[in-house]
Amino acid sequence: MKYVYLFEEGKGSMKELLGGKGANLAEMTNLGMPVPRGFTITTEACTQYYKDGQKISSEIQSEIMEYVEKLQEETGKKFGDKDNPLLVSVRSGARASMPGMMDTILNLGLNEQMLETLIRKTENPRFAYDSYRRFIQMYSDVVKETGKEHFEELIDKMKTQRGVQLDTELTAADLQELAEQFKGVYKEKVGQDFPTDPVEQLMGAIDAVFRSWNNPRAIYYRRINDIPSSWGTAVNVQEMVFGNTGDTSGTGVAFSRSPATGEKQLYGEFLMNAQGEDVVAGIRTPQPIQQLKDTNPAVYQEFHDIVYKLEAHYKDMQDMEFTIEDGKLFMLQTRNGKRTAAAALKVACDMVDEGMLSEQEAVMMIDPKQLDALLHPQFETKALEKAEVIGEGLPASPGAACGQVVFTAEAATEWTVKKGADVILVRLETSPEDIEGMHYAKGILTARGGMTSHAAVVARGMGTCCVAGCSEIVINEKEKKFRLGGKEYKEGDYISLNGSTGKIYGQAIDTMPATISGDFDRLMKWADDLRFIKVRTNADTPEDAAKAIEFGAEGIGLCRTEHMFFEAGRIAAVREMILSRTTEQREKALTKLLPMQRKDFEGIYEAMKGFPVTIRYLDPPLHEFLPTDEDDILELSKEMAMPVSEIKEVISSLHEFNPMMGHRGCRLAVTYPEIARMQTQAVIEAAVNVQKAHPEWKMVPEIMIPLIGERKELAFVKAIVVKTADEIIAKSGIELKYEVGTMIEIPRAALTADEIAMESDFFSFGTNDLTQMAFGFSRDDAGNFLDSYYENKIYEFDPFEKIDIEGVGKLVDMAVKLGKKANPSLHLGICGEHGGDPSSVAFCHNVGLDYVSCSPFRVPIARLAAAQAQVKQPRTV
Amino acid sequence: MKYVYLFEEGKGSMKELLGGKGANLAEMTNLGMPVPRGFTITTEACTQYYKDGQKISSEIQSEIMEYVEKLQEETGKKFGDKDNPLLVSVRSGARASMPGMMDTILNLGLNEQMLETLIRKTENPRFAYDSYRRFIQMYSDVVKETGKEHFEELIDKMKTQRGVQLDTELTAADLQELAEQFKGVYKEKVGQDFPTDPVEQLMGAIDAVFRSWNNPRAIYYRRINDIPSSWGTAVNVQEMVFGNTGDTSGTGVAFSRSPATGEKQLYGEFLMNAQGEDVVAGIRTPQPIQQLKDTNPAVYQEFHDIVYKLEAHYKDMQDMEFTIEDGKLFMLQTRNGKRTAAAALKVACDMVDEGMLSEQEAVMMIDPKQLDALLHPQFETKALEKAEVIGEGLPASPGAACGQVVFTAEAATEWTVKKGADVILVRLETSPEDIEGMHYAKGILTARGGMTSHAAVVARGMGTCCVAGCSEIVINEKEKKFRLGGKEYKEGDYISLNGSTGKIYGQAIDTMPATISGDFDRLMKWADDLRFIKVRTNADTPEDAAKAIEFGAEGIGLCRTEHMFFEAGRIAAVREMILSRTTEQREKALTKLLPMQRKDFEGIYEAMKGFPVTIRYLDPPLHEFLPTDEDDILELSKEMAMPVSEIKEVISSLHEFNPMMGHRGCRLAVTYPEIARMQTQAVIEAAVNVQKAHPEWKMVPEIMIPLIGERKELAFVKAIVVKTADEIIAKSGIELKYEVGTMIEIPRAALTADEIAMESDFFSFGTNDLTQMAFGFSRDDAGNFLDSYYENKIYEFDPFEKIDIEGVGKLVDMAVKLGKKANPSLHLGICGEHGGDPSSVAFCHNVGLDYVSCSPFRVPIARLAAAQAQVKQPRTV
Repeated sequence: MKYVYLFEEGKGSMKELLGGKGANLAEMTNLGMPVPRGFTITTEACTQYYKDGQKISSEIQSEIMEYVEKLQEETGKKFGDKDNPLLVSVRSGARASMPGMMDTILNLGLNEQMLETLIRKTENPRFAYDSYRRFIQMYSDVVKETGKEHFEELIDKMKTQRGVQLDTELTAADLQELAEQFKGVYKEKVGQDFPTDPVEQLMGAIDAVFRSWNNPRAIYYRRINDIPSSWGTAVNVQEMVFGNTGDTSGTGVAFSRSPATGEKQLYGEFLMNAQGEDVVAGIRTPQPIQQLKDTNPAVYQEFHDIVYKLEAHYKDMQDMEFTIEDGKLFMLQTRNGKRTAAAALKVACDMVDEGMLSEQEAVMMIDPKQLDALLHPQFETKALEKAEVIGEGLPASPGAACGQVVFTAEAATEWTVKKGADVILVRLETSPEDIEGMHYAKGILTARGGMTSHAAVVARGMGTCCVAGCSEIVINEKEKKFRLGGKEYKEGDYISLNGSTGKIYGQAIDTMPATISGDFDRLMKWADDLRFIKVRTNADTPEDAAKAIEFGAEGIGLCRTEHMFFEAGRIAAVREMILSRTTEQREKALTKLLPMQRKDFEGIYEAMKGFPVTIRYLDPPLHEFLPTDEDDILELSKEMAMPVSEIKEVISSLHEFNPMMGHRGCRLAVTYPEIARMQTQAVIEAAVNVQKAHPEWKMVPEIMIPLIGERKELAFVKAIVVKTADEIIAKSGIELKYEVGTMIEIPRAALTADEIAMESDFFSFGTNDLTQMAFGFSRDDAGNFLDSYYENKIYEFDPFEKIDIEGVGKLVDMAVKLGKKANPSLHLGICGEHGGDPSSVAFCHNVGLDYVSCSPFRVPIARLAAAQAQVKQPRTV
Repeated sequence: MKYVYLFEEGKGSMKELLGGKGANLAEMTNLGMPVPRGFTITTEACTQYYKDGQKISSEIQSEIMEYVEKLQEETGKKFGDKDNPLLVSVRSGARASMPGMMDTILNLGLNEQMLETLIRKTENPRFAYDSYRRFIQMYSDVVKETGKEHFEELIDKMKTQRGVQLDTELTAADLQELAEQFKGVYKEKVGQDFPTDPVEQLMGAIDAVFRSWNNPRAIYYRRINDIPSSWGTAVNVQEMVFGNTGDTSGTGVAFSRSPATGEKQLYGEFLMNAQGEDVVAGIRTPQPIQQLKDTNPAVYQEFHDIVYKLEAHYKDMQDMEFTIEDGKLFMLQTRNGKRTAAAALKVACDMVDEGMLSEQEAVMMIDPKQLDALLHPQFETKALEKAEVIGEGLPASPGAACGQVVFTAEAATEWTVKKGADVILVRLETSPEDIEGMHYAKGILTARGGMTSHAAVVARGMGTCCVAGCSEIVINEKEKKFRLGGKEYKEGDYISLNGSTGKIYGQAIDTMPATISGDFDRLMKWADDLRFIKVRTNADTPEDAAKAIEFGAEGIGLCRTEHMFFEAGRIAAVREMILSRTTEQREKALTKLLPMQRKDFEGIYEAMKGFPVTIRYLDPPLHEFLPTDEDDILELSKEMAMPVSEIKEVISSLHEFNPMMGHRGCRLAVTYPEIARMQTQAVIEAAVNVQKAHPEWKMVPEIMIPLIGERKELAFVKAIVVKTADEIIAKSGIELKYEVGTMIEIPRAALTADEIAMESDFFSFGTNDLTQMAFGFSRDDAGNFLDSYYENKIYEFDPFEKIDIEGVGKLVDMAVKLGKKANPSLHLGICGEHGGDPSSVAFCHNVGLDYVSCSPFRVPIARLAAAQAQVKQPRTV
């Protein structure tokens, strides 16, 4: 096993082994670009480090020393050599760029002796002492975790004593004194003298890099970015070049194109007489990269040429670091540059136009998740700069919103409709009854509930900005006010929310609407040409359906009928149905609902213009439709002319210990077949009417029975559907086909999918519930313990966001195979929230589904993810 | 396809096709016994009947007519023949005897014309008219479902008019008039004249038998007896013989041995001048069968010989029906006789002693479920006769109990301990805090909760009689009284419960203790010799463990540690642990629990005398340990010196939407590793102490981590266990092995069992939770809809009682195969309630488990079921 590679031994494709930084340094070296010499310790060495109980084995240590020798030979410099000392930088470098890990130690190899040599050789004592104190500071902080603050304090104290403002105003003597003080801090905190042996320094630094792979920030970052902890990080050890030797030296960073807009121009900044950290530290203001042309035209031209050579080489926009040492250019890093979503689209399209990329390559270049930002309103950048964050919650539904605070769904509707106001709905938590007000609100803020609470799920579906679970907020709904960040906010006060970050602002901040540029459209068309599976949407209203069509949806994969039941004017009939004691009473109430449901479906069919529509029958437990607080119960009692006690009795009889595993889904249709009958009537009559109005469309409504666990259960409900539907169609005088299928959302349904497929025209995987049942935890309750799971690396991602291929995926795969075998004409889709997650879309493509379905705002993401999946693993059937 | 068989074409082994009755009639016919001629329409014809939409196809009708012809040839009689009319009986006959289905129509073929012939030939008009009115009555009720009451009323009216008491006192003329009246009722109810065509009568009767296969009583009976609805029933059409032609005729039933005790003697009764129904109708008192010896010694001897020829032939105790027509004996039916559990054991053992059966055959003869009755107290039969049933609930835990009513667990303890009283604990529902009182109670009665409620599960575990979910009871716990059956019962009043039937009696009824006779022991030893898999028990206390050993348990498969936490003196420390804000506080509370848990385990190890003990770590959600009502919270507040508001905050923070899928099981150990550490300490220190005290035992405690869904989760908890255990063992100075394994109770664990097996010494299938998660319904809530599922034949049995082989079984099978492949030394068991269900035990045997574990009282049942499974499907590995 080879654990160390000289830069010239590696290449750009070896990212897994050498990390991104190491692989690119190797590539640049082999392209003949000016790169300080060095070597990379592999990610496998990191993995081995953890296997060995967080120790660098003696085997790896001696291999490292072998490469130190080689580096010494190449550079002619030596660790601890009085005449020609070797100083190095040590940098981490994982496969994917990972903030949160230990980043850099510069000037390693310095000690009192080397310092003298450095002064002697550079004739620049200030530079030498500056380098030395920086090294002590970085090493202490990073390797020994002493913290930076002790050092910062000493610097401040020194500046006060000397009566100066800037670090650069401190003299060589000041810095020498500081270095001494720093070593004192080190000794005090660590209990040992600061190490003078360069080899000891080096091993300490390497150990720190490996260790930092598992610090909490890195773990968190990996989790939210789907990076497996098994990857490990590489370590790059590189000969130092100095940007701080004087005015002919400097350091800078640059992009080959604008990371904000994507425009093709050299974009970046530099600072003369400085080391890397100074550029970002903000002590001095860096100069725009273009000014380098004036300062040093030759270096600028050399750099410019290298930049575009690298861009052409990597076929992507580059983000580079360089240092100029005494007028000579050195490249320290290159990588594909991070960019805004808009820039990403422009770069991709431009590069196609420039002939640098094929359309397919352009499609592969965009991270589908990034598109999200383009599909929601954002804050005006300038307005945001002055805004004060008063609190933070979970980033539950992306986008930015600004409006006046209201505390009830009714107020949200009223203020919007009557006053034309923009409102932010602030609630302890939302419930299904709040749907209408949530529709009107620009943003939603809740005190309780997680990423999958009612507010979060509904807001994501609507594309409305939502910050959920802000636990510090104290809401007084009665007095219409809340406290947060030490201040009180009343109804009508302005606040702003960022649903992408979870931040809450105590004032109005202007927002800009979502802008979908021409590049967006162009790229999506290329993606559509590549894509194999279809993309549908989850939509419950004609408005959502129309929006989804705009975003490119090719049908509805999930139309939930229950949301319609909460609308004013209907909820009364729904409650009447629930409170019925006899089948006749129930049928009477259902008769009232029928024309409303039929009209809903007509609207949705019209909006979908002949695209397929999958309608799921009533799913939630009935208690969700009944009021919970005393006032509402009293009101219902009057409405229904039914004693309060009797209503309470019904509510209590509907109480369940585990409502998720209770009387809901198709179980409602089994106990109350009349509900399924009414819904079938609505679905089919609406289809007949729309088919007659639009003979050019070929209507085939897809009726989806939820929560099936057994073939006979589906057969029972299907018999009701078929009987009702066939009678209506026979009377209608036209021909109309329809399909009856089921959600696969219960493990037993997946396990017996061969049986269930015999009764099904289609399966739609309800991976939300399937995940809950497979893992045995409920989304609403898992928040109490999942953090411990992430901290302990038991789970590395949220299985409700990204499908768990190992477990849940196995059930899906099993169901697909069993189902297709039993019924080859079965068609297959997914309608869980995973349908909008790129890695889950790839799974759905690979496992053989025909479509994914997701909320309207995720349709473009799914389209792009599906295209990328087809490129990576082409399907023909 | 052949749908009809003459008796001489069939044989005893064709039960599936001909039904039990038909197959046995065929067998007797072929044995040369006097059986009236006839034919059987197969169960497949019944299945076809349902396939054809509840119609007897013309194909089957003509086949039936072909056999009517054959029967006419054989008997020389003819349907509708004026000289020699054929009259038949029509009887249902499923594979297994099934009360609840249409049973019998006699005298079919009669009409006005035939009546005349009958009178002419028998010169017995009374007999003829009696036969006719019986036929009209049976046909109307059974075929046309008119109900019996109209006919009974008319008979009563006639008896009043004639001034007589008994049916037999009515004259031929009276009966003739009644027959006319009966036909009038028929016409009124059915809207047609009573059919005169024998073929029409026959087809109507056959149709009624087929139809009765799916009447609600039959469905219910099948469900509770695990009979699949797909079997169908056969129909037997048989030439009539008449027991009511005069004093040389008669009819009777008999057993070859006593069905109550098993004693070998002819046992039964008969009635001269009567048809079958008269014997059971109770109008006249039948005579003991022995008296037939006096009345008709030849017939008696012939019958006696046939009885024991049949018993020897079938190698089982026989239950027979016979008719004597004018001095000639006819056998109408034989079948294996139903018997009490005690009789079943005696018959089996006697038959071995008589050389009729091998030991293995004897073992196969006993229904394991029947043993249950022998393991619990029963009511004195005589005392029961006078008892008044005041209500009924679910038969939640078998046995009989009698005692004084108390309303709290504390009172149960106090009355028992201080007053030496026998008590029945009456509660709305029980909670874990009631454990101690439940232990003391002789019986438990609850108003709420189903077969799997807390009361039911705990009572079954303890072997205590329990009637659960009696919804009519109105309990006033405060005033210590309840109302039921229109009466009020106060604390101290006597009531009695039958946990096997769910009946509640309003007075004291003497009970007899469970008696385990010598036959029981003998048979269990034979079973143990045959058995391949081991039988362990679920036991949480030394007492339960000792009881289970008595019943033959070979270890503990599930020792729940949480039950111990509820005991007085501990619950305080448990609550202190839960209310802790810091790890140190929590550890302090755990330190108090440690010596108690250690002592528990020592007691259990001692009781188990070196048999293996599997200890499951803390499983339930923590809120179960906290009080819910205001008074208890106030008290806790004092105890803990913690404000009520703070306690309520903790309780509210522990609230979960779906507690079953919440923060419990190993999730507790992940968030609070100190709990797992304390439990490990208790398990291992206890094992060290007991091992030192008993060097002859080889202690290997098995530590079981519940609710695992992912390998890394188990690895995390295991690491805590192993570290703690190894330190203790190292210090102990002795060698001690232990195992760490997991429950497989979450679908994902089964799906990823290969991964999980790498960290496990054993798997124990927790099929209660696995069933809940696989079906996606909670046991506590499923009661609201499962009845509809049974009615509609969607489920035919309760998957919590009998393992669902198709779905849950697939997960188990998958986990066994994946687990064994990844870790061949893995050992496998089951600890869900299914471990005591015979058909589930067979599944466990067949799927390759090493043991089943069940509550102590079910150990003998499991031993027998395991032996039978090995005989049916022998395993060698």
